[in-house]
Amino acid sequence: MAMGLMDMGFGEADVISVLREVFATPDPRILVGIGDDAAVVAGSSQQVFSTDMAVEGVHFRSEWSSAFEIGRRITAANIADVLSMGAQCEYLLAAVSLTGTEELSWIENLAQGMKAEAVKAGAVIVGGDIARATSITIAMTAVGSTESPILRSGAKVGNNIFISSLPGWSAAGLHLLTNQIAATNEISNRAIAEFKAPTLDYEIDFYAASSMSDISDSLLIQAAQMATASGVSFKLDPELISQTPEFLELSLLAQEVSVDVWDWILGGGEDHVFLATGESLPGVRIGTIVEGSGISGIEMKKAPVSWSHFT
Amino acid sequence: MAMGLMDMGFGEADVISVLREVFATPDPRILVGIGDDAAVVAGSSQQVFSTDMAVEGVHFRSEWSSAFEIGRRITAANIADVLSMGAQCEYLLAAVSLTGTEELSWIENLAQGMKAEAVKAGAVIVGGDIARATSITIAMTAVGSTESPILRSGAKVGNNIFISSLPGWSAAGLHLLTNQIAATNEISNRAIAEFKAPTLDYEIDFYAASSMSDISDSLLIQAAQMATASGVSFKLDPELISQTPEFLELSLLAQEVSVDVWDWILGGGEDHVFLATGESLPGVRIGTIVEGSGISGIEMKKAPVSWSHFT
Repeated sequence: MAMGLMDMGFGEADVISVLREVFATPDPRILVGIGDDAAVVAGSSQQVFSTDMAVEGVHFRSEWSSAFEIGRRITAANIADVLSMGAQCEYLLAAVSLTGTEELSWIENLAQGMKAEAVKAGAVIVGGDIARATSITIAMTAVGSTESPILRSGAKVGNNIFISSLPGWSAAGLHLLTNQIAATNEISNRAIAEFKAPTLDYEIDFYAASSMSDISDSLLIQAAQMATASGVSFKLDPELISQTPEFLELSLLAQEVSVDVWDWILGGGEDHVFLATGESLPGVRIGTIVEGSGISGIEMKKAPVSWSHFT
Repeated sequence: MAMGLMDMGFGEADVISVLREVFATPDPRILVGIGDDAAVVAGSSQQVFSTDMAVEGVHFRSEWSSAFEIGRRITAANIADVLSMGAQCEYLLAAVSLTGTEELSWIENLAQGMKAEAVKAGAVIVGGDIARATSITIAMTAVGSTESPILRSGAKVGNNIFISSLPGWSAAGLHLLTNQIAATNEISNRAIAEFKAPTLDYEIDFYAASSMSDISDSLLIQAAQMATASGVSFKLDPELISQTPEFLELSLLAQEVSVDVWDWILGGGEDHVFLATGESLPGVRIGTIVEGSGISGIEMKKAPVSWSHFT
C-alpha cells in the first residue's frame, strides 16, 4: 500500500491530499507517482539503495526539533549514505508511524522538511506509508545510481585521508541541548542547528576517492570500519585537523562549556561529513593511510559520545 | 548507515554477523551487498518502488505470531505491492526497531521469515537498518522492475473483474484469534495461518490485466479505489463469488462462529489477493466493469473489518 493510513483522528483523505500536494512533482523521471500500489521511475544500470530508521526519543525529540527539522534530519542521513557511495541520490521513500495526536500541519511540515532536503540532493520522494503507533518512527529508503561505486574497502597505503568538513558540530549541539545550555552566539547557534538537521556537504567533489563513507557514528568509528574493510591503518594527524578554521570555532565553544573538543570531533557523529581517501582530494586533509590495522596517530580519552545516542 | 545498530543488550557484531549470514547470497545482481554505506545492484530502465510499515500491536502481535511469521507477513505485503504493478520483485530493504529484550534467535527468525518470502518472489534482501525503540516496528521497501506497469486506473467498461483467489481468510483468522476460538480443523487452521502470514498468489498470470491492485485493506476498498482511478463502476456479482470452492469452506467456518461470511470476503484485507480487470484472465471472475462510479451489485451490511485493524 502506498500511503495506506489508519484512523489518525483526522481524515485519511486529508493527509493523503496534503502529502500528494507536498510531494507533487513534474519530474519526468517519475512515470507513476504516489497513489498507486507502487511508484514507477526511470532506473539505471547500477542502482544504489540504503535504508535508515529514526525513532522519537532516540534519534530525535519532538520537543527539541520542529517537524521540518526532523524531516530534514532523517532525509539528510539517508541521502548521505547514497552520496558516500559516490552516487547521485535520485529517489526517496518514507514510512512514518504517528501517534494520532499530531496536527495535520505537523505532518505537512515533516513532509516539507523531507522534501527540502531531497530537493538539495536533486532527489524526489516517490512513495510512502503511514501507520499508527504509540510513538513516532520514521524509516526512509534512498535510491541512487552510480557507474563506479566508491566502497569503504578501497583505501590504499600511501593515500591521504580527507574529510569534507569538520565533524563534531552535531555532538556539540546535542551537548548544549541535553545540558540545557542556551545558545549565546553564532557558534552555539550553528551547533544546535547542525544537531537538529545537519548541513550535508553536497558541493564536495570526492568522486576521485579510493574509499569513502559518511560519518554517521563518529570519525573514529567510521575510520576504523574503513581501515578494517581496506586492510590498512588510518593514521590520523590531530595537527592537520586543528589547523582548520572550523576547529578554532568549535574549540571556543568546547572551552565555554568545559568539554574536550576532541570528544566532539572524533567521537561525535550525525553531521554526516564525508570521510574519504585518495591521492589528492578537496576538503580537509587529516592523515595518511599506512600499513597495519585500525586507527593510529590519535588517542580517544573516552568512548565516542554518539555510540549510545542520548537514551 | 547499513545495519547501523545501537546497544541491544547483546553485541552489535553478533547481530550483524547473524544478519549477514542469513542474507548472504551469491546472486550476481548484487554488486555491493550488506556492509557498506549502501547496496549497489543491477538496475532496470523502469524501476518499481513501494514501502510498507508494520507496527507491533497494530499489524502484528508477537504473542500471536512467531518472528518467522512476522517476517514473512510484512515481506509478503511489501512484495504484493510490486507484483500488483505487473512487475517482478527483485530487491528488498528492511528497517527494524527492536526493544532490546528480543533474543538474538528471535531476530534471526525474523530475518529468516523475510528471506523465505523473498526467495518465493525471486527477490533478495540487500540492506537494512536496526534501531532501538520501545516497540517493534518494521519498515520494508520492495524494489521491482517492469516494462509495462499495470495501474489501478486502466479498468475499461466491458472488462471483466477477477481475483487471484478468494479474500477473507486473513480476516477469518483474525476473528478466531481475537475471540480466542481454537482452531479445530483444516479450514480454521488455514484461516489462522493466512492471518499470521498470507500465501501470495505468486503463480497467477495477470500480466494481461488492464488494471490491478492487491487487496491490502479489503475487496470493497480496493475495488472502490480502482473504480475512482479508472472513472468506472466495479459491478460485483456475489453469485460468481459464491461459486468458488473456497467460498464453501470459508462459509462453513463463518457459520461455525456466527459471522456473515461476506464481512470477511468483502471487508477483510491483508490476504493480498490480486484484484484485476481485463477481457479474459485466470483466477476467479467476480464481476464486470460498467459505466458509473464506485461499487455496484453488492451491499455491505457493516464497515470492512480491517479498516481499523485490531486496535
